Amino acid sequence: MIQAAIISTGDELTTGRTTDTNAGFIADRLLELGIDVVAVLTVGDRPEHLRWAWSEALRLARVVIATGGLGPTADDLTTETVAALLGRNLVHDEQVAERIRELFRLFNRPMPENNMKQAAFPEGAVIVPNGLGTAPGYRVAVGSPDDRRHLVVLPGVPREMKPMLTDAVLPWLAELTGAARVGHRTFQTFGISESGLDEIVAGIPGEGRWSFRANFPEVSVRVVVRGDDVDRRLDAFGREVYARLGQYVYGEGDATMERVVGDLLAARRVAVGFAESCTGGLVAHRLTNVPGCSSYYRGAVNAYANEVKERVLGVPADLLAARGAVSEEVAGAMAEGARRVLGADIAVGVTGVAGPDGGTAEKPVGTVCFGLAAAYAPTVTRRYRLWGNREWVKLLSSQIALDWVRRHLLGVPLLEIGRGGAAPAPAPAKSESVAPG
Amino acid sequence: MIQAAIISTGDELTTGRTTDTNAGFIADRLLELGIDVVAVLTVGDRPEHLRWAWSEALRLARVVIATGGLGPTADDLTTETVAALLGRNLVHDEQVAERIRELFRLFNRPMPENNMKQAAFPEGAVIVPNGLGTAPGYRVAVGSPDDRRHLVVLPGVPREMKPMLTDAVLPWLAELTGAARVGHRTFQTFGISESGLDEIVAGIPGEGRWSFRANFPEVSVRVVVRGDDVDRRLDAFGREVYARLGQYVYGEGDATMERVVGDLLAARRVAVGFAESCTGGLVAHRLTNVPGCSSYYRGAVNAYANEVKERVLGVPADLLAARGAVSEEVAGAMAEGARRVLGADIAVGVTGVAGPDGGTAEKPVGTVCFGLAAAYAPTVTRRYRLWGNREWVKLLSSQIALDWVRRHLLGVPLLEIGRGGAAPAPAPAKSESVAPG
Repeated sequence: MIQAAIISTGDELTTGRTTDTNAGFIADRLLELGIDVVAVLTVGDRPEHLRWAWSEALRLARVVIATGGLGPTADDLTTETVAALLGRNLVHDEQVAERIRELFRLFNRPMPENNMKQAAFPEGAVIVPNGLGTAPGYRVAVGSPDDRRHLVVLPGVPREMKPMLTDAVLPWLAELTGAARVGHRTFQTFGISESGLDEIVAGIPGEGRWSFRANFPEVSVRVVVRGDDVDRRLDAFGREVYARLGQYVYGEGDATMERVVGDLLAARRVAVGFAESCTGGLVAHRLTNVPGCSSYYRGAVNAYANEVKERVLGVPADLLAARGAVSEEVAGAMAEGARRVLGADIAVGVTGVAGPDGGTAEKPVGTVCFGLAAAYAPTVTRRYRLWGNREWVKLLSSQIALDWVRRHLLGVPLLEIGRGGAAPAPAPAKSESVAPG
Repeated sequence: MIQAAIISTGDELTTGRTTDTNAGFIADRLLELGIDVVAVLTVGDRPEHLRWAWSEALRLARVVIATGGLGPTADDLTTETVAALLGRNLVHDEQVAERIRELFRLFNRPMPENNMKQAAFPEGAVIVPNGLGTAPGYRVAVGSPDDRRHLVVLPGVPREMKPMLTDAVLPWLAELTGAARVGHRTFQTFGISESGLDEIVAGIPGEGRWSFRANFPEVSVRVVVRGDDVDRRLDAFGREVYARLGQYVYGEGDATMERVVGDLLAARRVAVGFAESCTGGLVAHRLTNVPGCSSYYRGAVNAYANEVKERVLGVPADLLAARGAVSEEVAGAMAEGARRVLGADIAVGVTGVAGPDGGTAEKPVGTVCFGLAAAYAPTVTRRYRLWGNREWVKLLSSQIALDWVRRHLLGVPLLEIGRGGAAPAPAPAKSESVAPG
């Protein structure tokens, strides 16, 4: 397996001002090509630390991918450092210089002279174009043919770096490493734990490397295959995954639950609404993150106070008194009320105890009830016992509400939790020392 | 200035499965003590990479703080690596062992034998207790008195690491480095840009190191002072900050806008409600993240479709037709309707064009109107022109809605945007190569 190192540069990283999300993104993409990352070296903008990072990275790995330090100011030193370390001159590229001048003309702004720094590259560098900013990246090969090493330098702004990596660097790396014979497929799941998934995919025949990534409350499963016949083998894995895990797989690749639910609603021309209590607007927030949602999303009532459940949603006062706000009956009445007042085809109601206070022996923190009302079917309700802190209970509840819509539209049975069914939430990614229990 | 290095360990980091938030947290805390982080070394669980990270870190810095690799399984190798590198034996600590056994008894679970690994430490280590899990941390001093270096090892689970760092490691480091004579104070601001803040605090007399941290749509300002009389000088800085920036400073330390607004509502015994359109439930979601919000939060209506604005909030159909859904008049009517149907003392209405579609020449994407209705004052409305993608417009709008409640309760004038007032949103933290403009 080919090994790579990643360098992340910038004072904002070593002072904690910014969290480095570039390194993880790059590592994940490299793994898809069968390239292992052995180390991430993060340093500020001081030349001696940059020099240290580059010389160590080249010692550790055959491929080094670095982000940051390509700006026009005096503290952007990546290119100088690399050129000095390799003993190469800096060469001015007139085509890049002209594009930088053009960008400034386009925005009708004077160009500071030091921006021309971004048109200088170590001798022999292959330029990686930047479609969004003034700083292109580049790659350089060093060493003898039998000990060739490759340096790739990209800007630190994630919005610019990501398309450059995806469009220019990864295809080149795939060819370089023979990774054209590597393929992968990622399935997004909800409602089954990481260990549950592990057990099931372990039984799938065929040669593939399976990995899991927990992103509460979801788990994604990826399979990487290498060798001949990559596409056919991935198709076969996909068929097995759907046969064994079907109801839990809500999408593939970079699908999100809200986008999948939105697409389904749009395709079926079904208008949806929500009555939220403990989720406090989170279901609506997630669904309205999807552009174009106005074609199927009517609105939501966040009925936090009981009087709002009565006055706006028409939940009977005596039902609230008899069953309590957190009950399947009230969840059902909230859903029916929301469907009516919002003019929706279907509506989901959610009411529960998010904590940290408000729990009782009968209805402890994490008790959440759901109801789904539809024009053409009787209202269904469920009571679940969820877990985690306030934030997790809200997030998990919002996910269940969206998943109910998905399952309803697909005609799949509702998720069973705490009734012997699969657990809906994975443990946090890696807990090396959590209290047992 | 004393220099530190950070080591982050775990395959989940070098495969991109988990984003490392520990390193940034530690770097930020160290900076408060006047300790600079020169490098972050991130490696997986392979012994040769761990060895590399530790020997390089000790070469680079006098203080090394590491997280991860303290679990009970075979791939948790931090302690073995450190002991071998320092040439020290591993010593069993019976007190720690007994606490681990006790934790398992408490949760009524059998203890796997390899958990005893977590009770072994390099000779001479001082144990750092872990209040939440089975893996304690520790620190070790090495080298001669005139070239002393310090190694600190903590678990990788952020929930366990953070209190251990704060409660045990930082006070010890403060003493070790003389940082008892260092103090800091952080102000949370909204409604003014990073460069605007920079200009204003630059004019404040007195010796302090100012730094800024943009966390859209907010900017926090921190001042670090060193030397004598730390508290008195911080008090003086605080007075200047409030005199010059008063209305923009909504809180200090780890204050959040939603918590500050919630505390104000609770203290004034004012019940609040919201009528959201383009924010799609985000205002409600943020306010309900605050535990105990039911004492002042009544609820919200996410009136996405126009008919919901009419039917649930009572916005007149002819007003919607004459002015359009995105208008100051409709925002005001939404606020008044929300106040009435939710039974709130005050209510804020938000309606706008979040994009990417739906903009017109007259009302481009980013046009957002706000209204505030109160029992004891005439309704006020404003139209703002905001910027950014859908996610940013939603987030910035939700922040303005909460800030309106804060300013209303404090009797401070409403935020002016795009009328020559201060810009409410900072540019992204560091953009080294964004297109000019």
